[in-house]
Amino acid sequence: MRNLQELQALFIGELEKRNFGENPKNLYEPFHYILALGGKRLRPVLTLLSCEAFGKPAEQAMEAALGIELLHNFSLIHDDIMDEAPLRRGKETVHQKWNLSIGILSGDAMVVEAFRQISKVDDSILREVNEVFAKAATEICEGQQWDMDFESRDDVTEEEYIKMIQFKTSVLLGAALQIGARIGGADDVGAAQAYNFGLNLGTAFQIKDDILDAFGDPEKFGKQVGGDILSNKKTILLLHALNSSDDSTQSELENWLKTTDQPEAKVEAVKAIFERSGTVRYAEQRMEAYYRMALNNLDECEVHGADVSVLRSFADYLYHRDH
Amino acid sequence: MRNLQELQALFIGELEKRNFGENPKNLYEPFHYILALGGKRLRPVLTLLSCEAFGKPAEQAMEAALGIELLHNFSLIHDDIMDEAPLRRGKETVHQKWNLSIGILSGDAMVVEAFRQISKVDDSILREVNEVFAKAATEICEGQQWDMDFESRDDVTEEEYIKMIQFKTSVLLGAALQIGARIGGADDVGAAQAYNFGLNLGTAFQIKDDILDAFGDPEKFGKQVGGDILSNKKTILLLHALNSSDDSTQSELENWLKTTDQPEAKVEAVKAIFERSGTVRYAEQRMEAYYRMALNNLDECEVHGADVSVLRSFADYLYHRDH
Repeated sequence: MRNLQELQALFIGELEKRNFGENPKNLYEPFHYILALGGKRLRPVLTLLSCEAFGKPAEQAMEAALGIELLHNFSLIHDDIMDEAPLRRGKETVHQKWNLSIGILSGDAMVVEAFRQISKVDDSILREVNEVFAKAATEICEGQQWDMDFESRDDVTEEEYIKMIQFKTSVLLGAALQIGARIGGADDVGAAQAYNFGLNLGTAFQIKDDILDAFGDPEKFGKQVGGDILSNKKTILLLHALNSSDDSTQSELENWLKTTDQPEAKVEAVKAIFERSGTVRYAEQRMEAYYRMALNNLDECEVHGADVSVLRSFADYLYHRDH
Repeated sequence: MRNLQELQALFIGELEKRNFGENPKNLYEPFHYILALGGKRLRPVLTLLSCEAFGKPAEQAMEAALGIELLHNFSLIHDDIMDEAPLRRGKETVHQKWNLSIGILSGDAMVVEAFRQISKVDDSILREVNEVFAKAATEICEGQQWDMDFESRDDVTEEEYIKMIQFKTSVLLGAALQIGARIGGADDVGAAQAYNFGLNLGTAFQIKDDILDAFGDPEKFGKQVGGDILSNKKTILLLHALNSSDDSTQSELENWLKTTDQPEAKVEAVKAIFERSGTVRYAEQRMEAYYRMALNNLDECEVHGADVSVLRSFADYLYHRDH
């Protein structure tokens, strides 16, 4: 089977050839604009990888992979509106470049096109693929709503946070893998384990993201280290430190949360609290637990007929990344 | 087969029983809020009617009818944002009652739920129903974009206008009927003619709406007569009068378009122009032509096994309505 880079190139080549519509221009130009912004195309490539892992050529999963990428980009367009983000990948966001209405409507047209592409699978798996896809789409909306709700809540639990990041991100990785597996001919257990692999690996990835945001190497990380701390973002680190450390540490942390005029001191102090309260070690352990579950899921896929070598090196790469 | 009122009651009873989700509250409360605002439930009832016309009990088309109603309500939530509408049916719109983000996101979750419901049809028609539904959903987005684009264009043609109103409204009536027909067991021609019936009847209905907006009886019409004239809305009347009358009438009309300080005189003068330039008669003729095509489509449905009596009286009712 082909490796990640080869399938990435295959997907990008195919995406560039596609024309999802032309008129009205104000509806379809944003489509092609956001799809051209680039990115690693992780989700659709996982669909292709999973298809080949279970034994069919990735080309058979191309439409499904496009459906996955369209669903992801729909959520980016609408999330950027909700987050009032002016930029994505250094370029103007859709609502910024055009306007609010066009951002809403081109996102709407894109989620419909996503359903259209995903429905191109064979009759024998159409119902299941539709259901997996729609479930992921619903959960992405729910996850985004939880995320917005959390900003104004002060009683968010760690488990709620895990569920939120899973819904916002991991379920689509799971669906991408499950759908690819089914197209590749996976049996029920193989397909379910492919989903679980994506869910668990995605969760490990998100926890690692929280850790890197505070403790990553600034030269490698690409964005401002400590950004989550400065914005009081309820990451797994902050939630664990708030909910599980002793009273004096908690009140020290709460004081720093109110501090806005000493950014550098705040980052250093909060990081020190995360370290000495055992929060960093705790988050790393949870991350590793999800990673181990993901590897177990891969073993099960192997038992059910998949060649998981490329998926295993992909997981390994994510685990060892330092940015 | 049951009549329109009976199927309306059946649908409303079923809708009230449904729970599409509860958590997060900010995502699902808007769902139940907008679905409870009422309305004639025309689109889903057409699905039920069409199913019974082709010979199966409407209950078998209930999930599809819910899918149609959800798709319609998704477009209402998002259109209200784009139109900056504070009220719908006398109650606050979703984005007004909650906020912009919740309006966007609950609409997103609703279009996904619409696809989920529509996909509950039998395997034998699943692919076709999905395609008909997705095509209508795409066209609704395209129609909304054309509508917004037309506001700032001064070269809109009548045919573009017809296409816009068809996409915004009629295609969903067509899809509602075609999907109901298929569930009811219609053959290919019967299903296609059911679609065409909805498309043509919907188009006649929209043209009639334009005429009633200017010439309806104020006591019966419910909204301000002449509202379209006051807002210079590019209706079939205005487009025809601008594109097809003599030069002096055109420049007279263009002067009135610029007038904002004499609303009553403007409405009377523009109506007089519409009448003496033959525009009203022209619009009535186009409306009648679409209505006749719709009736021909019904005849074809009858040839292909449908009992079209209820659909025929429904068309007759729409044709003779004066508000």
